[in-house]
Amino acid sequence: MNIFEVLGMLAAIITTAAFLPQVYKTWKTKDTKALSLTMYVSFFIGVSLWLVYGFYLNSLPMILANGITAISTLILIGLKLKYK
Amino acid sequence: MNIFEVLGMLAAIITTAAFLPQVYKTWKTKDTKALSLTMYVSFFIGVSLWLVYGFYLNSLPMILANGITAISTLILIGLKLKYK
Repeated sequence: MNIFEVLGMLAAIITTAAFLPQVYKTWKTKDTKALSLTMYVSFFIGVSLWLVYGFYLNSLPMILANGITAISTLILIGLKLKYK
Repeated sequence: MNIFEVLGMLAAIITTAAFLPQVYKTWKTKDTKALSLTMYVSFFIGVSLWLVYGFYLNSLPMILANGITAISTLILIGLKLKYK
């Protein structure tokens, strides 16, 4: 792993971690009122495309970050639909 | 541009666009109370690292998406510090 791959992995960890507190909070409180369904569905589509593109570039940081963020976003969409 | 590069470019447009309504709203209302400075500073660091990694991968979608999102995030941080 060279320095750029390390930076990519750091990027993956930071931007993925930024989403987790939201998932935890929504899971615990079941309060989804302030969440925009349109925004999360758009984001899920965008992140899924990044995931496909990450496989194409053969980039482990992109596959990990976008794979985990896609799952986080899907959980938030599920909670939004369940508790709306 | 092959199909994967088109998907990457679509990904870039969608996830970058998801941020712009927040920037516009904050710019207009000057209301930054609900914005988490820690989250946005972390996100700025993460996106900047993705930008460096995008240059390394020579990926135009990554450079455009993360470059614009870094600027959006920096504007939000500036507004947060100005109107807190």
